[in-house]
Amino acid sequence: MSITTVGLDADDTLWHNETIFRLTHDRFVALLSDHADRATLEARLAETEQRNLQLYGYGVKGFTLSMIETAMELTGGEAPAPVIREILAAGREMLAHPVETLPGVDEALAVLSESYRLILVTKGDLLDQERKLAASGLGDLFAAVEIVSEKDRQTYDRVFARHGTGADEAVMAGNSMKSDVLPALEAGAWAVYLPYVITWAHEVADAPEGHNRYGKLDSIGELPGWISSRK
Amino acid sequence: MSITTVGLDADDTLWHNETIFRLTHDRFVALLSDHADRATLEARLAETEQRNLQLYGYGVKGFTLSMIETAMELTGGEAPAPVIREILAAGREMLAHPVETLPGVDEALAVLSESYRLILVTKGDLLDQERKLAASGLGDLFAAVEIVSEKDRQTYDRVFARHGTGADEAVMAGNSMKSDVLPALEAGAWAVYLPYVITWAHEVADAPEGHNRYGKLDSIGELPGWISSRK
Repeated sequence: MSITTVGLDADDTLWHNETIFRLTHDRFVALLSDHADRATLEARLAETEQRNLQLYGYGVKGFTLSMIETAMELTGGEAPAPVIREILAAGREMLAHPVETLPGVDEALAVLSESYRLILVTKGDLLDQERKLAASGLGDLFAAVEIVSEKDRQTYDRVFARHGTGADEAVMAGNSMKSDVLPALEAGAWAVYLPYVITWAHEVADAPEGHNRYGKLDSIGELPGWISSRK
Repeated sequence: MSITTVGLDADDTLWHNETIFRLTHDRFVALLSDHADRATLEARLAETEQRNLQLYGYGVKGFTLSMIETAMELTGGEAPAPVIREILAAGREMLAHPVETLPGVDEALAVLSESYRLILVTKGDLLDQERKLAASGLGDLFAAVEIVSEKDRQTYDRVFARHGTGADEAVMAGNSMKSDVLPALEAGAWAVYLPYVITWAHEVADAPEGHNRYGKLDSIGELPGWISSRK
């Protein structure tokens, strides 16, 4: 058994993302604090996002539209103009936010890229993800980039067949149990869970029990060692 | 010289798209008719779209955000709540709009897929384009689908190298001179211009003069014949 290919998630695996969404949540809550308390605002926004997920998919633009829709609902349609303008500005700022790689990422990817084919596998807005990859300075380390609308078993089957030597000889690493770990294991790949400090509610799932191709690491710095000890 | 691969644009080449954007434009103009005349509204919306293109890219979600932003500007920030709600609804309806293939498309693609590798090459929102392809019933005819953020020479170099036998043995066909024809010719491919009834202002460009790999056809039904006569 040899591993030839390493798939890596992007947001909250290679760079901060959820923290930026959280900052925007806080801004949203502050903007509408006259209309409802934090718990209500958060719950309503989460409902709107969930309802729109099938149409908008993942990413900043859909999130911005969902914030506007929620603001309209919570104010009985009388959201003050500054609120809508602030939400639009918050969305644009998220899209222009500087990209900061997480600790150990640059070193780990440099090491991994010497021995394995690296593939970025990520959800989100196409243009936004391309921008972040370019801004991260990591682009040249990847043999392929797949920005996908959904991460399921078929996604990993397809991606590892197209760009590698099949899921059987691939590892997927990321911060989402639901999107990165479980479907990659289903596809027959190895999978490594790299928890981030916060997890989006949609992405929560239980860890697989006693799966011999699963690992959980505290830091991406441990990933090269983990992979080479699988051989 | 043999042609092995046919790249096809999607919106306004395989199915209606701009007409749906135009309908939404009309709705936008009607909503704000108390605040400005049609020409002003159209011009301001086009300015907002152009300004946001680098952040939002192409697609319905960015267009919806630009409509909201323009409405806020044109009403001095006092856009009535029903206007914002209507714009949000118009965006969602565009994303859920039924897909109607253009005349001759189904037959032409069935014929082409017997002799060539077909690749869909399109801009726009990832999830929205995947939905439209699935709804069109054409998905199985394509060997590959590339949803890209920009269509330039490098895009066609990469796509035809990855999924075909290089740009030299490929044809790109689409309704945009600027995005489908000119950069494909630059990459060394053949290119066929298939004009649609209306063209988005951003996509207008002059036809290439006296280029021996360029063709203009009135209908996609003529494409199989055009390609086989290049051999």
